[in-house]
Amino acid sequence: MRKDRLLLAVTITAIFSADLYFILLPKLRNAGEGGRHFCPCRRSNFSLPGQFSNWTAFTLQDADPSGLSNGSSKLDRLFAHPLYNVRNPALGPEEKLLQADQLMDYNRKKMSRWERHMKLYNEAAATSNMTVIQHQVAFDANANWLKFHAGITRHALYSRRDPTIARLLLDMHDMTVVNADYTQDEKALKGACDCTKVVKPSGHHLKLALKMQDFGKAMFKPMRQQRDEETPDDVFFFVDVQRHNAEIAAFHLDRILDFRRVPPVVGRFLNLTGEVLQMTRNDDLRAVFFTSPAINTCFFAKCLYVCKTEYAVCGSPDLLEGSLSAYLPGLSIAPRISIPNPWIRSYTFTGQEEWQVNPSYCDTVKKLYPYNSGNRLLNIIDMSIFDFLMGNMDRHHYEIFTKFGDEGFLLHLDNARGFGKHSRDEMSILAPLLQCCIIKQSTLLRLQLLAQPHFRLSDVMRESLQKDPLRPILTESHLSALDRRLVKILRAVQRCTRKLGDERVIANDFIRTTANPWANAESKKAR
Amino acid sequence: MRKDRLLLAVTITAIFSADLYFILLPKLRNAGEGGRHFCPCRRSNFSLPGQFSNWTAFTLQDADPSGLSNGSSKLDRLFAHPLYNVRNPALGPEEKLLQADQLMDYNRKKMSRWERHMKLYNEAAATSNMTVIQHQVAFDANANWLKFHAGITRHALYSRRDPTIARLLLDMHDMTVVNADYTQDEKALKGACDCTKVVKPSGHHLKLALKMQDFGKAMFKPMRQQRDEETPDDVFFFVDVQRHNAEIAAFHLDRILDFRRVPPVVGRFLNLTGEVLQMTRNDDLRAVFFTSPAINTCFFAKCLYVCKTEYAVCGSPDLLEGSLSAYLPGLSIAPRISIPNPWIRSYTFTGQEEWQVNPSYCDTVKKLYPYNSGNRLLNIIDMSIFDFLMGNMDRHHYEIFTKFGDEGFLLHLDNARGFGKHSRDEMSILAPLLQCCIIKQSTLLRLQLLAQPHFRLSDVMRESLQKDPLRPILTESHLSALDRRLVKILRAVQRCTRKLGDERVIANDFIRTTANPWANAESKKAR
Repeated sequence: MRKDRLLLAVTITAIFSADLYFILLPKLRNAGEGGRHFCPCRRSNFSLPGQFSNWTAFTLQDADPSGLSNGSSKLDRLFAHPLYNVRNPALGPEEKLLQADQLMDYNRKKMSRWERHMKLYNEAAATSNMTVIQHQVAFDANANWLKFHAGITRHALYSRRDPTIARLLLDMHDMTVVNADYTQDEKALKGACDCTKVVKPSGHHLKLALKMQDFGKAMFKPMRQQRDEETPDDVFFFVDVQRHNAEIAAFHLDRILDFRRVPPVVGRFLNLTGEVLQMTRNDDLRAVFFTSPAINTCFFAKCLYVCKTEYAVCGSPDLLEGSLSAYLPGLSIAPRISIPNPWIRSYTFTGQEEWQVNPSYCDTVKKLYPYNSGNRLLNIIDMSIFDFLMGNMDRHHYEIFTKFGDEGFLLHLDNARGFGKHSRDEMSILAPLLQCCIIKQSTLLRLQLLAQPHFRLSDVMRESLQKDPLRPILTESHLSALDRRLVKILRAVQRCTRKLGDERVIANDFIRTTANPWANAESKKAR
Repeated sequence: MRKDRLLLAVTITAIFSADLYFILLPKLRNAGEGGRHFCPCRRSNFSLPGQFSNWTAFTLQDADPSGLSNGSSKLDRLFAHPLYNVRNPALGPEEKLLQADQLMDYNRKKMSRWERHMKLYNEAAATSNMTVIQHQVAFDANANWLKFHAGITRHALYSRRDPTIARLLLDMHDMTVVNADYTQDEKALKGACDCTKVVKPSGHHLKLALKMQDFGKAMFKPMRQQRDEETPDDVFFFVDVQRHNAEIAAFHLDRILDFRRVPPVVGRFLNLTGEVLQMTRNDDLRAVFFTSPAINTCFFAKCLYVCKTEYAVCGSPDLLEGSLSAYLPGLSIAPRISIPNPWIRSYTFTGQEEWQVNPSYCDTVKKLYPYNSGNRLLNIIDMSIFDFLMGNMDRHHYEIFTKFGDEGFLLHLDNARGFGKHSRDEMSILAPLLQCCIIKQSTLLRLQLLAQPHFRLSDVMRESLQKDPLRPILTESHLSALDRRLVKILRAVQRCTRKLGDERVIANDFIRTTANPWANAESKKAR
């Protein structure tokens, strides 16, 4: 009898345990995951100084010359690694993009012009009984955006040790918007919608230029796609929507790869009524605002005015999430040139470019100026690695600062068409590396580092993106795609070195940084 | 000990039963539903004669003058109900839309013209070395589409007893396509994309006119939206996509409501290469075909050529599902007039029409010709009930056959913007009923019948739609919305009768059908 009772107890316990393990736990787990997947991704709590302080902390720690880190954070560990602390030689005066006095003069003049304009506008508005909300704008010589502009050098947009970047992100997130307008791209179109050029990515004309309280400027790209939506397979890359989260993730990825060629980007909820409609002085922009049937505030593409309200974006009811990218110094003070990517794609349905059919295309490129000397081709390959990791097929041009000439770094601007598909690795993006079989040693070493479990690209990206107020920025599928693609890059390099030998494939770009006595030793060790 | 064993057995059985009932069964049920929801909705098996034979059977049974049905099918029971067997008086010759000889003459001439065109086209194609696939076209005086045209009367597009309709659906589904072209709408635009008129629904120019082997014509509307996608709340009704499944469901709903004012519609997979690209003689249409990055055959809106490949639809790789609606007789033989709906909506962001602000708007309408006498206003109310059930806000105009003058029935054409949202009942669609407080007795009785569990609108719709080859046509959410909306219509009528009395609200439209001795008695009984 006691045995039977025991048997009963054991049986019941076993059944309940099985139930618990196979039914209840998976359900709970699913519910948890479901919560993540279906999270509306909107938060009304905007001020997250805690997270940004972490950013600042990590930036400061990054500057730790000892290269040692006690933190348990993989990202801290990565940035503390000697590879991320290679010292550049002291900068000559010509290696900075802008001189401090020049920058101040230029912006003071701009500020006076703006004040004159505002005065005239407000007078006109007063006579026409229009209410215009005015915020005090103060030009501050210590503003972080000015420091960011002043810190641009021949090597990168910002230095690893510069605490300005984290502060600039904070500013872009927190500061009062004092003006909203179309970007220059949109203005150039003047609402005419030149259809023959729309295939040249133009973001469907929904980008906005925002001016902040401290006279800093940022470009706003609105959210167009949910985090878990994948670009359908039938969509050509050049008509894919632009993703605000791709802009944010690209900035973090570029920083983690130590390129520092993407201007700072942060996520922010914008109040379409209070921060755009009531702030703009552009009647054309005001005219594209409307209220949707669901009583949300929306605006739509200017040149598509009558045709396509489907191209509208809507707030909820006013708040719309998007990315804010810091503006570079104006073209009149820091001119840039835009150069077609030698591995440009055809922006048509059927066209193919030479690189797609000619496997020895790189031999041709190598003979052509400016790819026949210097770092330009290696920089193109860096860019293709960056784009391959993101799955960005839309790199038709690249820009460089005219001042630095052929030795300038390539700006990685406009990354919103990255992170569209996590399930596909578009190998053609890697064509420059695959066809030329060369890579910078510094890039290769960092990629190898990021492939190690101790640092793992997806982990440091997750950690880095976690600092953005719009987190989560990327789904887990996109993060793990990064690791998978990284392996493919390293394999491609391996195939090259097997065929051609290390000497011909790996370009030692540490040469110029001999001021750092351990750079070469470390790089050998890491290999 | 035996008692304990019994206890053990009972306990285990109880636990397993509970498991089975609470865990396993719901899972199976979910899986079943999931299968329905997430079914890719594509089948390669096209010939489903079995289902159509059922249709024929039901049509034949529908003709059963006894009004008795032994079937267990709710739909059979509905169509066997006396309310669906009210006899119309014998038709005078002028009550038919077309006379047989007139119809034959007209179509024979059309056929000769087509043959001449084809001969010229094929000769030209031969000299330019173009391969054109030719199918034999045979004009058959017994073709079902001709019988459909010949059967249109002053009362409806087809009679309940006509077996032609089921056969016509079969033909449209099975017959070889011999030509594909833009519809007249598209041709009128000539690719010019008059943006000021695009808000007038134009289906994004993706509709096609298909000519069949027997010289019959059908309009193809491609699938643009998954069955389980809901139109977002921010989308204005006039820019909503057109849904092929709404076209199909509208035909079935109209038939179930016994209106018979929607031309027959059936679902079909079209081979975009074999049945459109290789069949069209229109170079403009051929020019909008392309192959997508996923190697699917696609075509896109003509007037949006350069701008908007997002407006493309793609096969998989060639097959694309869509709706096929039978064409009405040509305008030259059976002219129609298009009349603005008195309850038209504003096709702008902000505009409001008088009916939206003036609650006694109907009093004005009632005084105006042709709404001041006859059935026209009652027909408008029928239409608003039909549209409310579907959630179709896009009824800007209605058409009537000129021949029948003011006594003609209203054609319920273009229903593709119905069934967009199942979670919302757009009461404003019902404004004609709510504001005028009148309804045909025949309509009211059928609505009351369909609200009974014995017939239930959602059940008969589900059963009817199950006969379409592209089933499931509507999700369960849309089906149950029909029941919910039906209750709202009946409540609205009840409020009217309470306020104004039956006499003023319920218009006895059985008067003309006194040939049927039991119609009035039955209608009183059903009330």
